[in-house]
Amino acid sequence: MFFGSDNGAGASKPVMDAILAANNDFRLGYGGDLETREIEQKFNDLFETNCSVYLVATGTAANALALSALTPSYGVVLAHEFSHIVEDECGAPEFYMGGARLTKIAGEAGKISLKGLENSLKLYSKRIPHAMPLKAMSLSQVTEAGTVYTCDELTALNGLAKQHGLNTHLDGARFGNAIASLNCSPADMSWRAGVDVLSFGATKGGALALEAIVFFNQDLANEFYFLRKKGGHLLSKHRFLTAQMKGYLENDHWLDNARHANKMARIMAEGLSKKKVRLAYEVQANEVFPLLTETQDKALRAKGGIYYPWGSRDLTHNPKGDEKPFRLVMSFATTEKMISSFLDAIP
Amino acid sequence: MFFGSDNGAGASKPVMDAILAANNDFRLGYGGDLETREIEQKFNDLFETNCSVYLVATGTAANALALSALTPSYGVVLAHEFSHIVEDECGAPEFYMGGARLTKIAGEAGKISLKGLENSLKLYSKRIPHAMPLKAMSLSQVTEAGTVYTCDELTALNGLAKQHGLNTHLDGARFGNAIASLNCSPADMSWRAGVDVLSFGATKGGALALEAIVFFNQDLANEFYFLRKKGGHLLSKHRFLTAQMKGYLENDHWLDNARHANKMARIMAEGLSKKKVRLAYEVQANEVFPLLTETQDKALRAKGGIYYPWGSRDLTHNPKGDEKPFRLVMSFATTEKMISSFLDAIP
Amino acid sequence: MFFGSDNGAGASKPVMDAILAANNDFRLGYGGDLETREIEQKFNDLFETNCSVYLVATGTAANALALSALTPSYGVVLAHEFSHIVEDECGAPEFYMGGARLTKIAGEAGKISLKGLENSLKLYSKRIPHAMPLKAMSLSQVTEAGTVYTCDELTALNGLAKQHGLNTHLDGARFGNAIASLNCSPADMSWRAGVDVLSFGATKGGALALEAIVFFNQDLANEFYFLRKKGGHLLSKHRFLTAQMKGYLENDHWLDNARHANKMARIMAEGLSKKKVRLAYEVQANEVFPLLTETQDKALRAKGGIYYPWGSRDLTHNPKGDEKPFRLVMSFATTEKMISSFLDAIP
Amino acid sequence: MFFGSDNGAGASKPVMDAILAANNDFRLGYGGDLETREIEQKFNDLFETNCSVYLVATGTAANALALSALTPSYGVVLAHEFSHIVEDECGAPEFYMGGARLTKIAGEAGKISLKGLENSLKLYSKRIPHAMPLKAMSLSQVTEAGTVYTCDELTALNGLAKQHGLNTHLDGARFGNAIASLNCSPADMSWRAGVDVLSFGATKGGALALEAIVFFNQDLANEFYFLRKKGGHLLSKHRFLTAQMKGYLENDHWLDNARHANKMARIMAEGLSKKKVRLAYEVQANEVFPLLTETQDKALRAKGGIYYPWGSRDLTHNPKGDEKPFRLVMSFATTEKMISSFLDAIP
Repeated sequence: MFFGSDNGAGASKPVMDAILAANNDFRLGYGGDLETREIEQKFNDLFETNCSVYLVATGTAANALALSALTPSYGVVLAHEFSHIVEDECGAPEFYMGGARLTKIAGEAGKISLKGLENSLKLYSKRIPHAMPLKAMSLSQVTEAGTVYTCDELTALNGLAKQHGLNTHLDGARFGNAIASLNCSPADMSWRAGVDVLSFGATKGGALALEAIVFFNQDLANEFYFLRKKGGHLLSKHRFLTAQMKGYLENDHWLDNARHANKMARIMAEGLSKKKVRLAYEVQANEVFPLLTETQDKALRAKGGIYYPWGSRDLTHNPKGDEKPFRLVMSFATTEKMISSFLDAIP
Repeated sequence: MFFGSDNGAGASKPVMDAILAANNDFRLGYGGDLETREIEQKFNDLFETNCSVYLVATGTAANALALSALTPSYGVVLAHEFSHIVEDECGAPEFYMGGARLTKIAGEAGKISLKGLENSLKLYSKRIPHAMPLKAMSLSQVTEAGTVYTCDELTALNGLAKQHGLNTHLDGARFGNAIASLNCSPADMSWRAGVDVLSFGATKGGALALEAIVFFNQDLANEFYFLRKKGGHLLSKHRFLTAQMKGYLENDHWLDNARHANKMARIMAEGLSKKKVRLAYEVQANEVFPLLTETQDKALRAKGGIYYPWGSRDLTHNPKGDEKPFRLVMSFATTEKMISSFLDAIP
Repeated sequence: MFFGSDNGAGASKPVMDAILAANNDFRLGYGGDLETREIEQKFNDLFETNCSVYLVATGTAANALALSALTPSYGVVLAHEFSHIVEDECGAPEFYMGGARLTKIAGEAGKISLKGLENSLKLYSKRIPHAMPLKAMSLSQVTEAGTVYTCDELTALNGLAKQHGLNTHLDGARFGNAIASLNCSPADMSWRAGVDVLSFGATKGGALALEAIVFFNQDLANEFYFLRKKGGHLLSKHRFLTAQMKGYLENDHWLDNARHANKMARIMAEGLSKKKVRLAYEVQANEVFPLLTETQDKALRAKGGIYYPWGSRDLTHNPKGDEKPFRLVMSFATTEKMISSFLDAIP
Repeated sequence: MFFGSDNGAGASKPVMDAILAANNDFRLGYGGDLETREIEQKFNDLFETNCSVYLVATGTAANALALSALTPSYGVVLAHEFSHIVEDECGAPEFYMGGARLTKIAGEAGKISLKGLENSLKLYSKRIPHAMPLKAMSLSQVTEAGTVYTCDELTALNGLAKQHGLNTHLDGARFGNAIASLNCSPADMSWRAGVDVLSFGATKGGALALEAIVFFNQDLANEFYFLRKKGGHLLSKHRFLTAQMKGYLENDHWLDNARHANKMARIMAEGLSKKKVRLAYEVQANEVFPLLTETQDKALRAKGGIYYPWGSRDLTHNPKGDEKPFRLVMSFATTEKMISSFLDAIP
């Protein structure tokens, strides 16, 4: 009963098949192969625009490298206070940005509100050169709280950021889950909503180790290949990143995976509801945040439940009594059986 | 007829089989799984000592991260002037070291000589705090010129470096080929020869994307997991790095691959010799550097030969007439047939 | 009527006299002169302990360099959310620390409370290696709000920080004003209160351009001279930093200056009180933060009053009606006449 | 008999007088004062063009900050192998550039030759993204060997660099001595000769602690004030930098100082010649590099001679017998009497 993270699953079959299919013959390394050109074209099609695409193996690399192209070393990047770049990447963004700063914006359920952004922009000091100037904003879609911005919300936030001269990043580690949730086009949820550069996640969605950094604002991608290489993130046998992406995108496999994971989350949420377990946040993608009593938690762990506690922070619904928030993550590999076993284990 | 690089091959069968075998069930991410503990133990056995092991996906990451643990930001790392860290990693070492400097030592055939090192140490300015202090030395085994230090040579160089208070790194991107060449133990070629930290390469040797950073001097590994994470080099589905290493090490597969590649190089060298083609360096591992005339080069490329020109620099044998140096790299996937086709194509 | 900052004054006479006195003959540069050794000894006497002293020309350099010796590049430094290192140094700390992070603690009147620190320590994530580890704490004495920690408060805060393995920094840009306020010994307010490294400010106190970085924990000062030089902060004609410090410290000149500035602040505060102007914070050193109405502000500026608005943030007393907070800073050069003119200008 | 460095002298009288004259009244800090605007205008006049000027207190800061505006973190800056930025600044350039690299060009007597530059440009690898791309070139005028490029030489070198897309820096720590030597205009020796940014030194020329970073290519100066502040190099009592520059530039004081120092060097050189002491380099500015025998060196030191040994490297005239090269630096404060005493002490 593993619900620890969507990276607890392996790679999905089409991804692994694509890796195997690419494991023949000799090929130019470092992305010099024809297949990599094809995947780049595939992104143009997928996003209905010309974009620059760089594949890397980790989400932290994707985010940190992307941000390093959006701000000089003395700039500030606005982000949700509990975002992945703030909380989970051990300072990789700051390292790659050369010391630029992440400034936090609070917001319920992992989301920055327009009002919250307005407030941050208004309060922000413009005392040149003492205060670091605002240079970029990073949003997460899906958020750390498993919630999803509507395209209108993204458009409004990015639009306001751009009015203030900020570059915009979208951390799409679970981009597929968000698309599956909103049922909109990738273009609508990215550049049409004002995103300059996207971390297009694939690892959590079923790949082995794969993320794409996608520049819609290609001015920002100038010589980006040097930044990727300087970070040690250019794979020599790059064919295997390309192959993963091929398997991931072909036949909408990524969306199938995402839809499955989201569906599992809905089933989990409904099951919990029947068990009278309350949720900390509304379920909008592939994560469920139940408020479990100590008794429930102990019983679940005794039966082999694997999942992590969650901070009592930007919750929509706060714990009562001895309830505490926990996080359950569904993936392409999560089965209904796993969920029913989990639910059955709740006393 | 691909001889461009040993990263032009895919992954070898045992490595890929291990990946497939690991692609089941759910597992803790980020190296928290049991198998990763087992691989760490395996390294202790392989190197006959306690060591700290960190897996990453690229050789540049391995080198740059390792070096960042060996010097403060104001230090100097001595390295061969044509080493990979100097010439091929786009400044990743400097970036990870926070601006520390690589200072070059010349030397024939990719090797630093004891005399060359002595000279560098003697000439080096000690004008505190104007001159950057020497903090580390990095050697490559196999070198960029395809040559191999004897264990005695490594011991002497590292010993002298340590007398001067330097930490020592070995870039072992082709560690297996060097072991196969010297027929010595991994311990003899590393910590017994004075190496503090080793980049143990596997990608070129048959893995998909895998290198190990191995600390024999464990004082230097203190909190290294933070450095790896900060660089974005901790894979979430770390099981697949672990699995690759399992497949790579099991049954001496890595050595079989290396021996095969070295053998192919010997066959290539002998064939070239019969064709009266001279070599720029002695062949000691899996690389051959022929001096080809323009006619020969054109004929080979016309027949589909893929390989790169080489700089006329630290050559043991210099070109005559219109000869120019080129590099041919053999891998686990190189076949005798490829070589005979190549040789046949030489006019 | 200049109350903009204590750096709006020039250099005090004893400091300038010492500069002039040092402006003769030839001397070894870069601090190699005998007088620099004497000043270092003088610090040992002043602080009643062995300490390592490094002179620089700016407060930002002192703070950023000091912090860079307290944390690795992946660490976190706790600081008050409105401290100078957070708000006014354009990211210099992050730059010098190689990307380490400043994490903010809220607190009334510029001060971190023991409860606030306890809370931050408790809430802080220990998820290795995802979360950046806590490595240091920086307090300001005098704070940005012109308030002063008691020695007991400093001891408690630093003690708790040290219990958690943190290194401790004190930003003493207005160290003299704090000593004058508490009437305690420099030792009591620094190392005896658990401070590892102190930014001992002199510029605001009457020097031309001078701060000292004082290491009480000398393990942290190892090779610090390289860090200072690498930052470009080692003056070639270092004699002039040394001379300033001589003039500043001799005959308790620094304390006289500080006492004068503090006294001017008390007089200003009393005068404001008589004018029924409320203060945002209690006056404890050389700064006064009046809550002025728009009418008052306009009248003062019309008469030549120079001073800056202050953020409505961690105020002890909040504005009412159209009051807004402002900052008035007194220095060694502030006269009672300036203050009476200022007070007279208030309608 | 101090000939150790031109920073061994104090500050010249007009500089100190200007400091004293500025030490009155209150003034806006951080360069917000009117006098700083006037000095900026003065630079426009001096250089006969619009330029952006930033004052700092050290030459290392000037060079490192200037270079950080000329290259991204993955770039290469070409410089003479024995230049100050390579040899004497403890890696400050690399630190400020975020890890960019200084690549050395050899050349006789501290100078890069056009042929040397051509060769470096030709040999330089363009293997994107493995090799770091060339981004800038830095020349020194006066060079470390006390020699001076003609304006034609500067024009040719910078012109070639610009043809290859490089930005150009001139380290003018002894800019005045070079102007005095060539008797040309500051414009001819800087932007008309293709210089994008100049480190205009004043400390060695008679200031207390003062250098100007002068951008002729103002595109490169975009938001440079943030870089200066982030490095901790913006002085709060900036008036004292401004004042120094006023005193330094007024009535051609800087040139008078430089002419005096150069004249002293000529007198020293002529005296040495009469004593049959050979020189390692031609004397073109304010430095003399005699080849002294051990007997001569000992006798001079016994009589109180202070000066440093020099490396046997890019010498124009090499030592014979037991001769060794030394460096003697003249400054505005050097007297003919000092020189005659020195010469008299030579056996």
